[in-house]
Order: sequence, then C-alpha cells, then structure tokens
Amino acid sequence: MDLEIVSIGNEVLEGHTVNTNAAFLGRELSRLGYRVARHTVLPDRVDAIEKGLKEAMSRSSLVIATGGLGPTIDDLTTRAVRPLFEEGIELKNEIGTAPGLFYPGLILLPGPPREMERMFLEEALPLILEQFALAEPVRHRKSCGLCLLKEVEVDPFLRDLQKEEPHVEIGIYPSQGSLLLEFSGSKKSDLNKLAQRVKERFPTFYFEESHIALAVQKEFIARKKKLAAAESCTGGAIAAKLTAIPDSSLYFLGSLVVYSNQWKEHFLQVSRSTLDHSGAVSRKAVDEMVKGLFHETEADFAVAVSGIAGPSGGTRDKPVGTICIAIGERGHKTDIGILQAPKDRASAIDWTVQTTLGALWRRLAHQAYTFS
Amino acid sequence: MDLEIVSIGNEVLEGHTVNTNAAFLGRELSRLGYRVARHTVLPDRVDAIEKGLKEAMSRSSLVIATGGLGPTIDDLTTRAVRPLFEEGIELKNEIGTAPGLFYPGLILLPGPPREMERMFLEEALPLILEQFALAEPVRHRKSCGLCLLKEVEVDPFLRDLQKEEPHVEIGIYPSQGSLLLEFSGSKKSDLNKLAQRVKERFPTFYFEESHIALAVQKEFIARKKKLAAAESCTGGAIAAKLTAIPDSSLYFLGSLVVYSNQWKEHFLQVSRSTLDHSGAVSRKAVDEMVKGLFHETEADFAVAVSGIAGPSGGTRDKPVGTICIAIGERGHKTDIGILQAPKDRASAIDWTVQTTLGALWRRLAHQAYTFS
Repeated sequence: MDLEIVSIGNEVLEGHTVNTNAAFLGRELSRLGYRVARHTVLPDRVDAIEKGLKEAMSRSSLVIATGGLGPTIDDLTTRAVRPLFEEGIELKNEIGTAPGLFYPGLILLPGPPREMERMFLEEALPLILEQFALAEPVRHRKSCGLCLLKEVEVDPFLRDLQKEEPHVEIGIYPSQGSLLLEFSGSKKSDLNKLAQRVKERFPTFYFEESHIALAVQKEFIARKKKLAAAESCTGGAIAAKLTAIPDSSLYFLGSLVVYSNQWKEHFLQVSRSTLDHSGAVSRKAVDEMVKGLFHETEADFAVAVSGIAGPSGGTRDKPVGTICIAIGERGHKTDIGILQAPKDRASAIDWTVQTTLGALWRRLAHQAYTFS
Repeated sequence: MDLEIVSIGNEVLEGHTVNTNAAFLGRELSRLGYRVARHTVLPDRVDAIEKGLKEAMSRSSLVIATGGLGPTIDDLTTRAVRPLFEEGIELKNEIGTAPGLFYPGLILLPGPPREMERMFLEEALPLILEQFALAEPVRHRKSCGLCLLKEVEVDPFLRDLQKEEPHVEIGIYPSQGSLLLEFSGSKKSDLNKLAQRVKERFPTFYFEESHIALAVQKEFIARKKKLAAAESCTGGAIAAKLTAIPDSSLYFLGSLVVYSNQWKEHFLQVSRSTLDHSGAVSRKAVDEMVKGLFHETEADFAVAVSGIAGPSGGTRDKPVGTICIAIGERGHKTDIGILQAPKDRASAIDWTVQTTLGALWRRLAHQAYTFS
C-alpha cells in the first residue's frame, strides 16, 4: 500500500530545521512493509497546506502529516484541514500540548520530534496497522554493512548479484568510508542468501550491525576487552560516536583528546623529539600515542589519530587531509597508516572516525591488519 | 520568485538518509530572497521521477533536483529527464564523477552532499542569479542566538516586538537548550533595531554568532584565554562540537574523556572517597574534575560534566537525565549546577553540550554565574 509523508513548516522549507520527522516516519513505515511513495514539505499557509494535502490524498491511500498543530500564530494545519472532514479520532499527546488527529486517509501529528515519535508509535500506528492491512505479501528486509570499502569497489559485484536474484531490490548507501547495503524482497531466504554472498566476497569487511560503531561495541563486549583512544584531529568525535550507544561504558575506558602538543607530551609521553622532527602528524607520533595509552591505562586495544583536518595547517609534504591512524593491541605490532582523507574539515573528521573504527573492527574480529 | 527542491532516492524516502540536501538548498536560496515553495522526495523509479519533476516544473519557475545522477545501479534521474529537454548546460563536478545539468527551469545536482554543495555554490548559483532575477525588493535577514533560554521564556517578548514592527517576519528556532532567532524584512535598519531590543532584554544570553560554539571560540580568541574540558556523560561531544570549527586549536587545549572511574582518578585525581560516597555524578566529582584540569594543564578556563545519559544507570535519587556541570575560571569560584536533562540519551547529550557551552560563554563574556 502506498502512503505519503507531508511536513508542514517554513522552518523546514528554509532549512533551519532538517526534516528528521520524515526520515523517522519513512524508516518506521517502510520497515513494516508499507511503501513510502513521496515526502512533501509545505509552507505555513492555509491555502498551500490544503492544496498539498488534497493532492497527496488523491494519490495515496494514507497521508501522514506533521507540524502546524500547536497553539501559536503560525500553526495552521488544523485550520486548513477542518473543512475537509466531518470528524476525526483525537490522538493523545503524552508529552506536549497539541493532540493529533486521525481522519479517514489523513493523520495529523505534532511537529516537535519527540512528541511526534511517541504519538506515532503509541497512538497512530496501532490504528494504521488495523485499518491499512498490507495487501501485498510482506516485504522483508535485510541490511548489512561493509567497512573501509568504496561504492565503486562493491557495485560490480552487486550488479552480478542482481542478475542472480532479479526480484530482490538492492540498495547501497555510502557514508564516509563505509557502506550500508539493504536487500528487500518477498522471500526472507533470498535476502539471507544475498547477504551471505556479500559476506563470502568481503569476509573481513562485512558486518551485521546497522553501523560500524555498534559492530565494534558488540565485538568488544563479546570478547570482554577494553578500549582506549587518543584523538587529535578528530577532536573527540571517535569517543562521541562510540559513547552515543547505550552500554558503551561496558568496554570503553575513555579518550584523551590531546588537541595541543603540550597535552600529547604531558598525558601520553609523546617525545619532544618526535614532535619536533617528525611532527604531530606522523607515524611515529601516533605510535607513541598508542604506547602512551597502554602505559597509562589498562586497555587491551588502543587507537590513536592525528591529522590535518584543515582548512589551514597543510604543507607541501603533508597537505590538508593527511591523517595518521594507529590501531594497537597490547603485546602485538601496532597497525599504522598514513592516509589521505577528503579535504573539507567536516568530511575529513567523519572519514577518519569511520576508517579508524573499520580498521579497529577488522583487527578485533578478524585479527586483520588494514594498513601494514 | 517561487522555486521547488526535489530530492531523488529511496534511501531518503525510507529514512536511511536524512534530507540535509534540501535543508542546505532551502537555507541558501531563502537567504538570498528566493521563496522556496515546496520540497519533494521521489523514489528511484523512472516514471515517478518524470511525473514528480513535471508537476514541480508546472507549479514553479525553477526546480532544483538532487540525486540519481551517478553511474550505479539505482541512479535513474538522467534517464527520466533526458526525454524532456533538447539540451542543457553541463555543470562541473570538482570532487566527484557525475556532472550536473542546467536545463531551462530544471537543475540537476548530484546526491552526495559535498559534491552537491560545491556544485550548487560554484556552478549553479551564478547561473540562477543571472537568469532568475529577484523581482521583489531584496529581503534582508538578521539572525542572533539566545543561550540557555526556552521558547516559552522568549515568545511573549517576541509577540510584543512583532506588534512594534508588523512588517518584519520573526522566526524562532529552538534546539536543545538554545534558540536561534531570525528577523527578515525589506529594511535592514528595522532588523538591527529588533536584534538590539532582544540584546537589551536578554543581555547576558544574547550572542551574534550562528551557534554557541562559535560564540565561545570568538570570545576565547579575543581574550587570549585557553580552555580545557573533562567529559564523562557527553563522551567527547563537547570537544567534538568545539573542534568542528576551524582554528579551534588557537584556544582549545583538549578534553579528557574520562568515561570510566579509573580514568577520573588516574588522569584528574578525582578522589576515591568522592567516587565512593558522592558518586561520579555529583557536585563534588565535577568540582574535583575542574581542579584536576587546572592542576594538570595550563588552562585559564575549565569545564567538567558528569551525568546519567541513560537509558540505564538511573536511581531514585539520581534518575536518568541527572547532569552535573562545572564551569571553572582559574583563581575564581567554580560555578556548579546539578540539572535535569531530557531523558533520551541523544537529547541528554546534546542538551548537556549546549548548556555547558552557554554557561561557559556567559562566564567568559559577562563574568556571569549561571548555576550558583
């Protein structure tokens, strides 16, 4: 069954707010097997809201709209919708003021994400499942991840897989330095077979979890090992990514964000001579950072990164985007790479986080060296 | 002039990717005075892409579409659009493979955000400004921020301001623990006057920059002071937020992400007795973390946070969302608060980062104590 998501609000149209509501609803509904046919964002104007909602309702069996339900002057959705229906079912808002409304073919939810998400899951979804049964056979989904690989390195193999299983839809979603694959189709066994084929083709890059930080956490907890980090150019982003996940304290000891050279010396005993002669962005510096972590803490594994995230600080020998990564396991040789990240600052940081976690995961789960 | 933004891709429809491309384009175009009338997201199907683009072009003078231009299996935009036009101008892609296309009334840009943003700013925008002159008088915009305030604390004052200047559009965009205000109108002087009124009403909460981390950085660099952080529950997110900004190394020494209690003792000399009797989430613990930072480093200012981000770890006395924040200036009394953050983990972390930076900024710029 086709459905559409409509978001109402100038703040979304003008980019002050990123449309996470539509992403949430799209994810929840497509996971259940509903086909999300379109997202639309409309302005805070009664005529535009009415026109946009009517169009969507004429195309699709169900429209879910968010925003514009509050008591303030720019909340106009209710005014636009009231003339269209005789009556609707009120949906409780447990954590905000504006209730939602469930009309035949149209559901109105509030704009603030936490209110919307709770009302959708607790109030609207049971009614949707009851009134809009999935006529088509349920579509199953299976996703998996590939760390450290680029889309072009995987695409030819996926095209071959597609020929083998033409009825399975294959999605490939790249983010900085890792890939999410999604297979969907009517037979679970087909999807599992394809995931297995990917695993066989890229055995030490394949992971089951929805992202690499979660794969790292599961592996650490299963192996009862502890991790420490030392970050320069990522400035805490590795630690922030890992600790965003509940229960990360079960394996993650902490990170020394040694942004200045004094801190590298003081907390990790990186030698003055290394900093003076090889520089803070060098194989030697990240090697000493890992040694410092093992010396100062009880970690079983340690990662260290240092690089030039830019936009300034690049030199001829070490241009912006030069990144050193070290992956250490106590008692073993440290795996060290000097790599080229994307040149803009935000991408360079994100890429370094993903690449470090990918290499750490391969070392932990497969005893594989990525850089050496 | 009305224009629309269309994003193509199942990964956006199904919520695997949040639509930051539409937010970026909406922000850039509305800032220039173009009216963004609608965003639409379409699936990876040639017929749906063609239909959606035709509808948008029939409603609006210009449609900007992103995604589906690449060489891979699910990139179908070019195939859908080719029959509609005789020829277009190719737009260079400096950092990716797929070029963009500029047709009469339709611009195609690639999906990866960095490629899209660069192509839009460098290649497409000059052509848009040339071919789609703004008929209406230019709308000016002025934005400012308010840290540590909630929408309800500011809204009544804004309603009064609106009465004074009915022709100015006032936007209020809350994020966790801070507010962005935006004024837009035809007269620059009106906007500056309103911003000045806000500043007079909330003098120690008002900042000029687009976000609080940038306000903190400018203030530190202007005052030639150095900052150190110690993070437990935020897990590196404070450091990551600060170091996302170029030149943060001019004032930011680093952060000790002491996620485990051993690290709090070892690196910051938090006493065993404090951890045993008051706990890691206590006024005493964050006070000792600040003292440890001043003892170990040359920082002029130090911030420390410890809290229960959840979902587990809450107790009756300290439920999930209990957060301790300490703001220290060397030689002065430390400002310490024990606060209640939102209860979901991601919001709690984000709220703590915003609140810490807001309180730090008030201490630095106005010598104001926020919590004591």
